[in-house]
Amino acid sequence: MDPSEVDVPPLKDLTIDNITDNVKLINSKCPNPRLKYILERVVQHLHDFARETRLSHDEWMTGLLFLTSVGQICTDVRQEFILLSDILGLSLLVDSIDHPKPPQSTEGTVLGPFHSHEAQVEPNGAQISHDPDGEPCLVLCDIKDMSGKPVEGVKIDIWETDSKGFYDVQYPGREGPDQRAVMHSDKEGVFWFKAIVPVPYPIPSDGPVGKLLKQLKRHCYRPSHMHFMFEKLGYDHLITALYLRGDPYETSDAVFGVKESLIIDLGTVSSEQAQKHGVKAGSKLIGYNFVLVTEEQSRELREQNAMKAMKAQGRTMKLWNGLPVPDLD
Amino acid sequence: MDPSEVDVPPLKDLTIDNITDNVKLINSKCPNPRLKYILERVVQHLHDFARETRLSHDEWMTGLLFLTSVGQICTDVRQEFILLSDILGLSLLVDSIDHPKPPQSTEGTVLGPFHSHEAQVEPNGAQISHDPDGEPCLVLCDIKDMSGKPVEGVKIDIWETDSKGFYDVQYPGREGPDQRAVMHSDKEGVFWFKAIVPVPYPIPSDGPVGKLLKQLKRHCYRPSHMHFMFEKLGYDHLITALYLRGDPYETSDAVFGVKESLIIDLGTVSSEQAQKHGVKAGSKLIGYNFVLVTEEQSRELREQNAMKAMKAQGRTMKLWNGLPVPDLD
Repeated sequence: MDPSEVDVPPLKDLTIDNITDNVKLINSKCPNPRLKYILERVVQHLHDFARETRLSHDEWMTGLLFLTSVGQICTDVRQEFILLSDILGLSLLVDSIDHPKPPQSTEGTVLGPFHSHEAQVEPNGAQISHDPDGEPCLVLCDIKDMSGKPVEGVKIDIWETDSKGFYDVQYPGREGPDQRAVMHSDKEGVFWFKAIVPVPYPIPSDGPVGKLLKQLKRHCYRPSHMHFMFEKLGYDHLITALYLRGDPYETSDAVFGVKESLIIDLGTVSSEQAQKHGVKAGSKLIGYNFVLVTEEQSRELREQNAMKAMKAQGRTMKLWNGLPVPDLD
Repeated sequence: MDPSEVDVPPLKDLTIDNITDNVKLINSKCPNPRLKYILERVVQHLHDFARETRLSHDEWMTGLLFLTSVGQICTDVRQEFILLSDILGLSLLVDSIDHPKPPQSTEGTVLGPFHSHEAQVEPNGAQISHDPDGEPCLVLCDIKDMSGKPVEGVKIDIWETDSKGFYDVQYPGREGPDQRAVMHSDKEGVFWFKAIVPVPYPIPSDGPVGKLLKQLKRHCYRPSHMHFMFEKLGYDHLITALYLRGDPYETSDAVFGVKESLIIDLGTVSSEQAQKHGVKAGSKLIGYNFVLVTEEQSRELREQNAMKAMKAQGRTMKLWNGLPVPDLD
């Protein structure tokens, strides 16, 4: 770069008190107003954090090495940064902000680090878990919109652990995906499959996030649950999960994902259901009626909430691609 | 873990408004008061950041994947998280907080990502750069304490780039360390060596940090400088650098490291110096009188500044191992 092209205010002799404004200034030439705003807030919070803690050089280095190890343990099938975000409550917070749910619609929750793109497309009725030690469980669900109309052709991603509490991707020697599937709702909005009863399990604790939890004297368990992700053009992307009532970790989920509306009672398959779905009467049953909101409904609510929050924070903002940026006009 | 050991307040149905206090609560059992305070501030700032930006799920994922790539490009000789901290001004800020300098002592600046532990111990007078294209430069320095007394036996770590602006560790095929050395000050506090005139250079821009700088429309250059690190029992660890006056990037350093007191005029070796030090008269010369503060002086100033800052922020704190934690008594 030609030094003559350097076009920033002179920066020198920066101190604890003036560095923040100067870093913001040098970043302020960013042509993307959203990235510019995000960086402005990142710099402010990072610097405030250092000033409020009087962060030492050793702590700074410990922090950077911690983040490095979080990055380095990540693989195609392990996302430790999502896990870190999960245990700090950031994941649930972001889901709540980005996917606000009107009353009566199904609430969202954390994605978690174990969604994969390996799941096979399966027809209704498929057996998606092949763990012989798992307790068989019929899952019978349907999907409606806010007006009560069934929604057909929704792509549903489902994933759960095996009976030992591990996802398929946690086995180095695994031969292919298991305990996960992609399905589609039928004309009545119905989708159903054969799985196993979810069990509580520890999030991976052999990495830097596990070590952090130990230092914080927190346990690393999640209550029994099954993950669901719903996608259909025109509908708000829904990432959620169903939790079993009475789980010992129901009120202390390591990643803060439990919501009352997503807790279900484990049921029992009736003779009629058994015959219709080809499973044993008396075996376990999970049933749920999911309610999707349209993209339009979600967008309106999200933008309304955003502008209300910005006003409450005393910020003069406008929306840019649906997200707030400073209104400088 | 036995569920009966779970000893946290019931957490369920967390929302945008109550999640922060609940995450702090579950972290509050941390027995280390400093880690507890640091985590408390991390959670507050992370969550405030998400609420202030109304962070979207896509942006959250982009951010996590960015941090993952920063971690994954790190090696034994490349530290991209330090680089990220550098270009966000955090590194300079932390150095300013942790190593306050009384007037008359030598100021500190950023460590940068290229310090290595490979440097050889060299005697006074050593040739530490072997780049035939570099412009030879004699470096003549001494070290005194605040009372003007020479400090003997200080371990000095020195590193600079070659004439092309690259550190040795940036060459995959390098045979060993070059342009770096560890030396010790003599009885008069003097250390001297033969090096090359520093040149401006770009920080590594082929990784995620370089991409970020591009998006922010910032250049990635550092003005010409030579790194120094000073260590002696009883003295405050000093990480600093000398900058050449008139460098085209003098007032736009990509990592905010330049301080007026660290800018030097490149001098010329006199006949007397040439004879004494075995170099050509008229060749380039860098001279500097470093002034170290004692650990005691630095600690006192740091603790004083910390308590003053905490008071100004309205926090009731006490010192714990020299660092502030909430005073709950």
